[in-house]
Amino acid sequence: MRLVVIGGVAAGMSAASRARKIDPGLDILVLEKGDTVSYGACGLPYFIEGRVREAADLIVHTPEFFRKERNIAVRTGATAAQIVHARREVTLSNGERIPYDRLVIATGARAGSGGIAGADLPHVFRLITLADAMRLKNYLAERNPRRAVVIGGGFIGLESVDALRRNGLAVTLLQDSQYLLRREDPELTKLLSAHLHRFGVETRLGVRVESIEPDRVGDTRCDLVLLAPGLKPNAEIADEAGIQRGRSGAIQVNDRLETNLGGVYAAGDCAETMHVVTGRPAYIPLGTTANKMGRIAGANAAGGRERFAGVAGTCILSVFGLGIGMTGLSVEQARREGFSAVAARIEARVRPRYFGGKPVTVELVADRATGRLLGGVVTGEQDVAGRINVIATALGARMQVDEFERLDLAYAPPFSTVWDPLLIAARQLLRQM
Amino acid sequence: MRLVVIGGVAAGMSAASRARKIDPGLDILVLEKGDTVSYGACGLPYFIEGRVREAADLIVHTPEFFRKERNIAVRTGATAAQIVHARREVTLSNGERIPYDRLVIATGARAGSGGIAGADLPHVFRLITLADAMRLKNYLAERNPRRAVVIGGGFIGLESVDALRRNGLAVTLLQDSQYLLRREDPELTKLLSAHLHRFGVETRLGVRVESIEPDRVGDTRCDLVLLAPGLKPNAEIADEAGIQRGRSGAIQVNDRLETNLGGVYAAGDCAETMHVVTGRPAYIPLGTTANKMGRIAGANAAGGRERFAGVAGTCILSVFGLGIGMTGLSVEQARREGFSAVAARIEARVRPRYFGGKPVTVELVADRATGRLLGGVVTGEQDVAGRINVIATALGARMQVDEFERLDLAYAPPFSTVWDPLLIAARQLLRQM
Repeated sequence: MRLVVIGGVAAGMSAASRARKIDPGLDILVLEKGDTVSYGACGLPYFIEGRVREAADLIVHTPEFFRKERNIAVRTGATAAQIVHARREVTLSNGERIPYDRLVIATGARAGSGGIAGADLPHVFRLITLADAMRLKNYLAERNPRRAVVIGGGFIGLESVDALRRNGLAVTLLQDSQYLLRREDPELTKLLSAHLHRFGVETRLGVRVESIEPDRVGDTRCDLVLLAPGLKPNAEIADEAGIQRGRSGAIQVNDRLETNLGGVYAAGDCAETMHVVTGRPAYIPLGTTANKMGRIAGANAAGGRERFAGVAGTCILSVFGLGIGMTGLSVEQARREGFSAVAARIEARVRPRYFGGKPVTVELVADRATGRLLGGVVTGEQDVAGRINVIATALGARMQVDEFERLDLAYAPPFSTVWDPLLIAARQLLRQM
Repeated sequence: MRLVVIGGVAAGMSAASRARKIDPGLDILVLEKGDTVSYGACGLPYFIEGRVREAADLIVHTPEFFRKERNIAVRTGATAAQIVHARREVTLSNGERIPYDRLVIATGARAGSGGIAGADLPHVFRLITLADAMRLKNYLAERNPRRAVVIGGGFIGLESVDALRRNGLAVTLLQDSQYLLRREDPELTKLLSAHLHRFGVETRLGVRVESIEPDRVGDTRCDLVLLAPGLKPNAEIADEAGIQRGRSGAIQVNDRLETNLGGVYAAGDCAETMHVVTGRPAYIPLGTTANKMGRIAGANAAGGRERFAGVAGTCILSVFGLGIGMTGLSVEQARREGFSAVAARIEARVRPRYFGGKPVTVELVADRATGRLLGGVVTGEQDVAGRINVIATALGARMQVDEFERLDLAYAPPFSTVWDPLLIAARQLLRQM
């Protein structure tokens, strides 16, 4: 019995490793088009920044490790071109045919070009793969660029702005919509733009880029462009094989992460996931999600019977020391999903002043009809991760706002205030319901 | 209609303030035996340490504030000696009678002497009230003591050890049991003792102090003794009035925080609370609990119909930069409560090394019979509060360990690792169930 995994980064290697644990006798082969596997893609901006010194520091395990320690065969430089399920074969770009009994598709995602002309000019970069990062790192060292334009104000775009600025470049951020972080939240965008401005970064909203010239984007002169207009699932390989994609364009899977073809699973940034708040499929390409999905897909491909519980879309990023955590639905998303959404936003100090406490902003979103908590955003320079995780935990438990308001959270002056900002926000939200 | 509140610190002033909001016409009188109200008792160790410069900085609101801004009358220096419920009267120690229609008892707690001879010598201190702290602060300034013995390794004892050491005193900590923090957890005690030792504090376990001499405790010479052998509820006033106490010795209340006498409520450190994990009464004297109970008691005393949801006993302290957060039940507590308790403890890095991540220890406790999460401990120098709050939230939601293991927690390298230490601990625990 042979398991083939297409893709050797987060979801793929998690799937292969978990399958090995479940079935020690399984023949496992991972096909990776790049020349490295198992690297921490979320660390790429910190490699560009310089905090991570060597690309090798981002590599968790080498192909040799997988071969020797886990009895998992890894072929790098192997691009899967086609899946012929009738024959249970993957065809590589060189024409070679790889037979499988079970298949896990973990082909990841790419930065779309957004139809921008000039997107393949040599001074235009993406930041998705380790190869992308190494090319950019070399360009920074060899060409010493002075002015960068970052196109796209999502996670990768904002983390790249921070990393490039810390390399001494002047940075302009262009965003086609009126909102940063792909969240229809004018206050969050305002707060974030002001923060970027404080660090010398100009943000221009509502700018639709049509083309990139060798020395400028529109009227902004630059010698480096970072293209981060959002992720597109690498799901084309599914079509010809008769594997269905969902409305998001990513591969459709059931709660065992199996596609419509028996024995063919999909996980990570190429696949849809389940949203725990809506109970509906969603496309949420994130590292944690990829790792979790990989484990489940690998377990089931090896004969297990595990279900994927879904995710709340919890995510966090740091931009020039400002932490921004988000989980669940925004008001606008919630309304689109049919909830009677209501939100409250408060600002409070995270700890007493005598322990250096700074302000944090907490927004909570709830459904007026059922009283259920639907999502939240936390922004600040201190203790953002812990607080967004409390909200994520409440979402995982399908908690009501009034239950949330009664939570027994920890208090001591070095850590918090008597009424945690989360509870202050919940109380404010209850008044509006 | 008159509401009398006995006690003007956390629970008492919360009760009075909430009652005012519910009923703008209520006549409200607070009786406080000390000469200040509404201070942050949890900040007292930081006043001793010196981080809080003035005692006044710990006072949230003055009696004048309550009078003017909230129309709440406050009498300081007014010690309630007796409650005569048949006549709806509180008798003060000077014989004065104060009539009431509704009563909230918020008399707090005190440090027991543990029957130790010499406990009232002038160089022996407690750290419960603002007056205690001011007396100790003066003694430190005027007498310049060099060697302190702290009796009792609970929260106040450990925070005092830290504060006294930072004042330059040599400190010895004596604990009568074999465990610190009143938790039968040899590993936690070992970790904490080693940490104290690193900061020059000697910990002696299993030392039962019989008497304090003017220049020593047992064979340990000292010129200052801090007595912190655990809190005793100030509940004696209840007995003569026919108000029942629970098995803990604290005042018994129902879920509306009403005592067995109609219209008489109790809240804060003098009263029992409900434990959300066991569903049974428990004595958990903490600042957050006091504030929460005060609000509910005040609301109901003013004619509201609010229920107290209980607490998980979530608490946190910092000792020389080491954070220790606890919530729910320990394995031993869980077994005593009839659960088939099982625990897992892991150590993991909170963030990647390149973001300065240090190790954190997570222990989770669960019930093997039902799969339910029962409690947890988190210790480390970084991000302890957020993680103990995630566990507390899971307890508030009565979460199963397998649900907990599937939580969608936030990940980005500046904040965490792909698999949060909480999830690693949960996975470890699942293997043992």
